[in-house]
Amino acid sequence: MTNPYTYAKANQERFLEEYQELLRIRTISTQPRHADDVARAAEWLRAMMLRIGMDSAEVILMPEGRCPLVLGEWRGAGAGAPTVLIYCHYDVQPAEVADGWDTEPFEPTIKDGRLYCRGAVDSKLHVMANLKAVESWLAADEKPKVNIKVVLEGEEESGSENINAFIARHPERLAADIAVISDGAILAPEQPSLTYGLRGVTALELHVSAPVSDLHSGHWGGSVHNPIQALSEILAQLHDENGTVTVPGFYDDVEPVTAQDRALLEKVEPYMQAEWNDVVDAPAVWGEAEYILPERLGARPTLEINGIHGGYAGPGMKTVLPARAFAKITCRLVPRQDPDRALNCVVEHIKRIAPETVKVDFQFGGMGAAAVLLDVDGPAMSAAAAAYTYAWGVEPVFERAGGSVPITFECMKVAKEVVIMSYGLKSGRAHGPNENVYLGNFYKGIQSTIKFIDVVGEGLA
Amino acid sequence: MTNPYTYAKANQERFLEEYQELLRIRTISTQPRHADDVARAAEWLRAMMLRIGMDSAEVILMPEGRCPLVLGEWRGAGAGAPTVLIYCHYDVQPAEVADGWDTEPFEPTIKDGRLYCRGAVDSKLHVMANLKAVESWLAADEKPKVNIKVVLEGEEESGSENINAFIARHPERLAADIAVISDGAILAPEQPSLTYGLRGVTALELHVSAPVSDLHSGHWGGSVHNPIQALSEILAQLHDENGTVTVPGFYDDVEPVTAQDRALLEKVEPYMQAEWNDVVDAPAVWGEAEYILPERLGARPTLEINGIHGGYAGPGMKTVLPARAFAKITCRLVPRQDPDRALNCVVEHIKRIAPETVKVDFQFGGMGAAAVLLDVDGPAMSAAAAAYTYAWGVEPVFERAGGSVPITFECMKVAKEVVIMSYGLKSGRAHGPNENVYLGNFYKGIQSTIKFIDVVGEGLA
Repeated sequence: MTNPYTYAKANQERFLEEYQELLRIRTISTQPRHADDVARAAEWLRAMMLRIGMDSAEVILMPEGRCPLVLGEWRGAGAGAPTVLIYCHYDVQPAEVADGWDTEPFEPTIKDGRLYCRGAVDSKLHVMANLKAVESWLAADEKPKVNIKVVLEGEEESGSENINAFIARHPERLAADIAVISDGAILAPEQPSLTYGLRGVTALELHVSAPVSDLHSGHWGGSVHNPIQALSEILAQLHDENGTVTVPGFYDDVEPVTAQDRALLEKVEPYMQAEWNDVVDAPAVWGEAEYILPERLGARPTLEINGIHGGYAGPGMKTVLPARAFAKITCRLVPRQDPDRALNCVVEHIKRIAPETVKVDFQFGGMGAAAVLLDVDGPAMSAAAAAYTYAWGVEPVFERAGGSVPITFECMKVAKEVVIMSYGLKSGRAHGPNENVYLGNFYKGIQSTIKFIDVVGEGLA
Repeated sequence: MTNPYTYAKANQERFLEEYQELLRIRTISTQPRHADDVARAAEWLRAMMLRIGMDSAEVILMPEGRCPLVLGEWRGAGAGAPTVLIYCHYDVQPAEVADGWDTEPFEPTIKDGRLYCRGAVDSKLHVMANLKAVESWLAADEKPKVNIKVVLEGEEESGSENINAFIARHPERLAADIAVISDGAILAPEQPSLTYGLRGVTALELHVSAPVSDLHSGHWGGSVHNPIQALSEILAQLHDENGTVTVPGFYDDVEPVTAQDRALLEKVEPYMQAEWNDVVDAPAVWGEAEYILPERLGARPTLEINGIHGGYAGPGMKTVLPARAFAKITCRLVPRQDPDRALNCVVEHIKRIAPETVKVDFQFGGMGAAAVLLDVDGPAMSAAAAAYTYAWGVEPVFERAGGSVPITFECMKVAKEVVIMSYGLKSGRAHGPNENVYLGNFYKGIQSTIKFIDVVGEGLA
């Protein structure tokens, strides 16, 4: 008798090897030169879906050669059975050794129970944990009582524009009773958590220019508003001393933090603070004094500068007064904030405060997603809680995540219920150097997804 | 009968070819990977000095393999004759096509009477105009009535540390009656000018850090003082709305602008404004309202941000909350400001205003030079005025330059008089893309140096 739980345990070693094979492919969706790598990974994933016994698997090409979707289906539970859609993304952020990596960013390296690699936690962990859970079910004697769709996105890190358009055009392809968004992090290796809120995101680039070309800072300094200085002056006016965003209208639609939120999030606070001490370890916590840490990170919007550049930043000195400087900015949004409206508030504010001695221009990256609030008491969330309790032996707590999983909002259009199941850790350094996964989470994640399919199949069949 | 003036005119074409040959050598002193290019140029210059008839020429190696000096001497006027020392620098600023060049930065390109190349105006123009003037004298039947030393520096663009130390150790090697600092720009192609003041310079790098490594801006944004934001907040506090530097003590020792300065500089103002309109062309003139443009550029100190970098500045977005950000800063100084004291004022101010939520660190580039004021009515200045009047057919006006020629201060220690003779134009875009020289200035510069040697030889013999 083979059952999915024992099958998964018996095949851990092979699962880990396959996971590393996927990690080696540089699926950087934000850099067009890696388009071939992304396409190769898509084909690799499609082949795996067929190998593990799914009925169909397709690489769905996106417009303009952008990173494709991979969509697999198993329909063996029959037309009357409910459908579970599992979403993950297989693209990753850029990574270079120079950013501070201790190992080659795209060569998986295992040390002290952790596997280091770009994408290890964000989000090939979820891709592989879920595919291996499906494999375990399809290899078992007793088949799942739910139909299964797995959709793997290739451009989550660069705006998800195409999957959103795909869902709008073909809602039936991803239609499901429950959509599982599998991405993100739990609170601690031994304390699973369920995310009932996600922040949205919107992005812009601000360009400031003054002289028509780079100048000698000795010859002309004192007679022209240095674009780096002007940019700094603008950026410095976007927050007050409390860390509150000063953009007029930015908070107009913000959903207030409720008493239920505060009660749930206070349970999370000690874990968050411990994680902050470990991962962030800045000289002091910063931000809105009237909110506790999990609220600042999950229930309050932010305006963050992700990059800045101007003039000469190489070795040595160059006494240049540069023609231009720019900053990349993202805002994290909370429920009821409209991404376009929030973006527009920021743009209009910057235009208002920009000095007349410089020109300002904007570029928009197409990154836009609304925040999400899920029903803590719904049946999908209850099934997920049961799954974590089985795999970890501990009941999950409920939190609101600071990151954005734009697809959640889209999945809410095609699925009756949505639940977010995360198997990473915040200490996994997603987007940073030395990104890593706690390997225990990989194996527990597989068991958790197996159990989720089990519970949903029993409960909704 | 060969005389130096006609010899120079007869050999213009060859002089131009040799000038272009020197321009092709990438003598970027701020980038260690170009050390071999700098050494090759030094050897090329030494060989030329011997070829044109100087008595000796030496490449003087500097400590730690840094860019060498080239020192040539002609002693034919005899022990009783005065000595003229001519100083130029042959190193250049970095340059990349990506900075906005219309041509290859190190391939000389002639168009509409201008020669485009990195170093064309700053300062291989001066190196070649002076060497070719010396060649013309030594090829003439009647020899100069002054002894001549030519010193060519290889690290003016990266701090001049070694030449200063060399002069301190061997003052006799550069000792002279008159030192000619040949660098910089005149007001207009048809309006020569003599510089009677130069700003000094001091430099620092400011590093701001907060989290121990780059973080996911969604996961952690709102709980940590973003180093780019904190850096911007610090930089934004270094000037007030008038463009005045807000650093306490910065203006304490500043020599006030006198009535004579105002009278001389008002003559320069229309040229400066025209040049500003042409070269700078920002939306509006900026800076201290109570000073006219030539005063802002020559007689007032500045604090300029030459470069800034933090986070992700490549293509696409990266939702990173960076661990650190930095800015490169230089201050231009005016007479009586001590470079170390001014630098210290800036450092102490930044430490005072830096928020406790971040760490600040400083790096110092070794770039430090005091400002210089020269005697408008001295004999060397009069000889220089006569030289310009001969070569251009127009009397020069007197100005104060915004740039720094640190060597001027050092030469004042070893020469009885110092004069600055510039043959470039501000429209030559020194330090910027599309640096160029107005070729008429190259030929007039040669005639001017020939005449200067003539006048000094007749007057002081």
